[in-house]
Amino acid sequence: MPLTLDQAKEVLARANRMIAHEGVLDAFGHVTMRHPTDPGRYLMSRSRGPELVQPEDIHEFTLDSQIVTPIEPRLYGERVIHGEIYKARPDVNAVCHHHAPSILPFCISGMELKPVYHLGATMGAATPFWDSRDDFGDTTLIVAKPEEGASLAKALGPNWIVLMRRHGATVAGRSLEELTFRTIYTARNASMQIQAHSLGHVSPLTAAETELAGDYNLRPGPVARAWEYWSVRLDKAEGTWQAVKPKAAVTAKKRPAIKATAKKANTKANTKAKTKAKRRR
Amino acid sequence: MPLTLDQAKEVLARANRMIAHEGVLDAFGHVTMRHPTDPGRYLMSRSRGPELVQPEDIHEFTLDSQIVTPIEPRLYGERVIHGEIYKARPDVNAVCHHHAPSILPFCISGMELKPVYHLGATMGAATPFWDSRDDFGDTTLIVAKPEEGASLAKALGPNWIVLMRRHGATVAGRSLEELTFRTIYTARNASMQIQAHSLGHVSPLTAAETELAGDYNLRPGPVARAWEYWSVRLDKAEGTWQAVKPKAAVTAKKRPAIKATAKKANTKANTKAKTKAKRRR
Amino acid sequence: MPLTLDQAKEVLARANRMIAHEGVLDAFGHVTMRHPTDPGRYLMSRSRGPELVQPEDIHEFTLDSQIVTPIEPRLYGERVIHGEIYKARPDVNAVCHHHAPSILPFCISGMELKPVYHLGATMGAATPFWDSRDDFGDTTLIVAKPEEGASLAKALGPNWIVLMRRHGATVAGRSLEELTFRTIYTARNASMQIQAHSLGHVSPLTAAETELAGDYNLRPGPVARAWEYWSVRLDKAEGTWQAVKPKAAVTAKKRPAIKATAKKANTKANTKAKTKAKRRR
Amino acid sequence: MPLTLDQAKEVLARANRMIAHEGVLDAFGHVTMRHPTDPGRYLMSRSRGPELVQPEDIHEFTLDSQIVTPIEPRLYGERVIHGEIYKARPDVNAVCHHHAPSILPFCISGMELKPVYHLGATMGAATPFWDSRDDFGDTTLIVAKPEEGASLAKALGPNWIVLMRRHGATVAGRSLEELTFRTIYTARNASMQIQAHSLGHVSPLTAAETELAGDYNLRPGPVARAWEYWSVRLDKAEGTWQAVKPKAAVTAKKRPAIKATAKKANTKANTKAKTKAKRRR
Repeated sequence: MPLTLDQAKEVLARANRMIAHEGVLDAFGHVTMRHPTDPGRYLMSRSRGPELVQPEDIHEFTLDSQIVTPIEPRLYGERVIHGEIYKARPDVNAVCHHHAPSILPFCISGMELKPVYHLGATMGAATPFWDSRDDFGDTTLIVAKPEEGASLAKALGPNWIVLMRRHGATVAGRSLEELTFRTIYTARNASMQIQAHSLGHVSPLTAAETELAGDYNLRPGPVARAWEYWSVRLDKAEGTWQAVKPKAAVTAKKRPAIKATAKKANTKANTKAKTKAKRRR
Repeated sequence: MPLTLDQAKEVLARANRMIAHEGVLDAFGHVTMRHPTDPGRYLMSRSRGPELVQPEDIHEFTLDSQIVTPIEPRLYGERVIHGEIYKARPDVNAVCHHHAPSILPFCISGMELKPVYHLGATMGAATPFWDSRDDFGDTTLIVAKPEEGASLAKALGPNWIVLMRRHGATVAGRSLEELTFRTIYTARNASMQIQAHSLGHVSPLTAAETELAGDYNLRPGPVARAWEYWSVRLDKAEGTWQAVKPKAAVTAKKRPAIKATAKKANTKANTKAKTKAKRRR
Repeated sequence: MPLTLDQAKEVLARANRMIAHEGVLDAFGHVTMRHPTDPGRYLMSRSRGPELVQPEDIHEFTLDSQIVTPIEPRLYGERVIHGEIYKARPDVNAVCHHHAPSILPFCISGMELKPVYHLGATMGAATPFWDSRDDFGDTTLIVAKPEEGASLAKALGPNWIVLMRRHGATVAGRSLEELTFRTIYTARNASMQIQAHSLGHVSPLTAAETELAGDYNLRPGPVARAWEYWSVRLDKAEGTWQAVKPKAAVTAKKRPAIKATAKKANTKANTKAKTKAKRRR
Repeated sequence: MPLTLDQAKEVLARANRMIAHEGVLDAFGHVTMRHPTDPGRYLMSRSRGPELVQPEDIHEFTLDSQIVTPIEPRLYGERVIHGEIYKARPDVNAVCHHHAPSILPFCISGMELKPVYHLGATMGAATPFWDSRDDFGDTTLIVAKPEEGASLAKALGPNWIVLMRRHGATVAGRSLEELTFRTIYTARNASMQIQAHSLGHVSPLTAAETELAGDYNLRPGPVARAWEYWSVRLDKAEGTWQAVKPKAAVTAKKRPAIKATAKKANTKANTKAKTKAKRRR
């Protein structure tokens, strides 16, 4: 059963905020998804920092990256990155464009990004480079014209990530959850690879390991587990999360070895919980 | 329509706190702006950590860096950095002096700082070095005398940033918003460049790319987008931000794939929102 | 006096959250302990990010890694890592499997991890590598079959940590508190070693120093002190911690040198404390 | 006018928490000060993570590192580090022993730590190494015996910091505020120096610059400014800090360029402030 449009907007807004909160996106970059019932459209926020995106910021776009119902606020300039990939890749249902601090050193140096641990295997076996200079010479580096988006989509080919020289990366996924997982763990993998280079030899996964580990980690179980984790971290940062209230029976008689701390901490937690409980009455 | 003095003080205090909260400033460094209606004066906080600056801390200074209305609290010792640049550069309306952790390695090693991605292009094509030893020999490294400020302003020349050997950097902008953007993204660019060096070859933007990308990113749209993002991050840190209350209709029926988390998280958010709503009544 | 089962679940849930909160675990990895009264069983959470684990998530498993009372939610796939080590090592009462960002560069590069400071000495003198390729060829890298767990346990041998190529690490302890200490400080040691390599020569502890310093730091005193620290940090992050209310007598008359700050801060604290006190009445 | 004993305990507890909150101390390490009126005694916390130290945790010790009034809780094992330095250096009134992540790479590699920017100049011109192996051979690396403390104090000599091979650092100051400044900025300097090495050549301050810049930054003004900054950061982390309430007059009419954000943020702040105000009534 596909999502309703309202559900899709809510989950897409959350993915924007989650990926930003994990440090992969900052003031710039964007996460989109294909319309849940109309494959000829995609959903994208109006132009604002992804960590701020709310469901009501999200609008529908055609695959030519035109907004369906025009609005007054500014739109993202690089919509064609998303539209041209959705056109070229019917299997792709979510896209993230970002400038993650751990990915950029590869985009600057030209060093090949490789899966160096099982969770990074979700990036896939090949991580092609695209250089705006090759087709377009000196530009703003911004991918704003349809032909620029199409050139990038061509460089992505059948892969799941394309590195953009002196710019960033664009990641694709079959679902929004898969995209979120791949985007964050590819950034983590990149950071580990940089430090491994500083220690000497980098020994990546074999092609077979990459395929096996990638498939394993993109099953619904691991993907949902990671989504829950990042989602709760976001809730904590946004102040909408509450600690589970400890059960009185358990906290009353504490183990000796660590009693000093545990007792104090729990007393506080209990007091606080009681205070809150009173206020609620 | 220019800002009123009160508005200028508020926005300047916020820029101080934002740039500090992003890790570019710490206990030291300062952000100033030219007086909104009197180009012969500039606005600067009394001496305190920039993350603590409030509108009432901000005072008026002549371009000779004398306070207009003397106050009892201590003033920054390096006022001439700002005054001498405002004198030499009528196009500059905001200045930031800092010791960012990612910029200092360049100031220590003498390695050239270069634009390595489009957002870093806002630093401009040239990033000159200034060494206090050249004109003044062994000093405290503090730029406190008018002739020291003038020497630094001369080294800045027509550029937007000057690196100070064994000390830090001074950044200039046509507006406070442009300055904030350039200051933060130059620091991010520096961090990426350091890691790119560790991977091997560093391939920066061409001069043409730097100009095109710099101009593109300093348009009002991108600058306002980044300002909003850093401003909300500051609000979160200062406890003045509130999560948007989710709409009941949407959160009631959650999608299956990620239901466990989403349901729990939203239930909490709703409960909390309701509790808050009750308290407000 | 051993812990009750309820106490064990609470302290194990807390260890999961603490080690995750310190950045050693993320969405993946797990911490387990041997059943407090039945050495033929161990306790482990159902499958979820360790930072989210609550006492009620924890279930009993046989040493063959079968759940004692089947549940509907998903279980961790790599249970055999724990079960096979508990089988092979009667002296081990707690195990942590993780993919810490500072440990992975060693797993990728093959660089030997060594104790480089006294707190890191708790890792022990030898830190063997295990490569899933040696016995099993190309795999998902996931240790899910009993023979894979047994192979890993064999590589661990009589040591306290085993590094898993292109995957992570598994750490063992005589108690949950010892395990927590060793896991976190081995990760800190790894991070320092990486940076020391970048400076040149790495000079580790001698075998005798490693033994002496390891034993010293694993005594109950240091272990409890570190546990309290990480526990309070977790409480702060979970919002269950409260600042100690300053005594009015002391804060009323502040020392001159730092009066500006201290006075303001304490006035606020007092106001806040009073407000809270009123609400409690 | 010297501090009262109560005032000294409060400010020392705060220094412990501040330096820990800035990441220089973790579960281990300690900050002490000489007794404000009895130079033959010093003040030190009972054994607990420095970020948790409260005024009531602090006790008096003789310069032979014996507690004046015995207590039940555990004491720090490395008291002699402090006692022996207070004995050898009548000019020293505060000492910090730590294992900062940015300092350890120097202690491991033997690379010389040098002042590379003006704030780091407060470490002084010489940063000697002490190796416990030289006098004592293989040990726990813990400095617990009087002769070990005396050996370390001798290595410190007339300097302000001594690096301890495979262990950490000990820093001294003429006052607690000076010590806090030197401890934190020496750690920041170390981090910058590591990254500068990765870029190539490291060009430190001259001896004359070090002396001039060190003296400049250790004057009461800069030291108080840094103290206020770290103190407020601690207050924010401990939840005892409150954002300054914006003045209604200023926030009502916002400047156009950044209105979207600013307006929203301020409306929230006002609403929140009003809600709080109501509750207080």
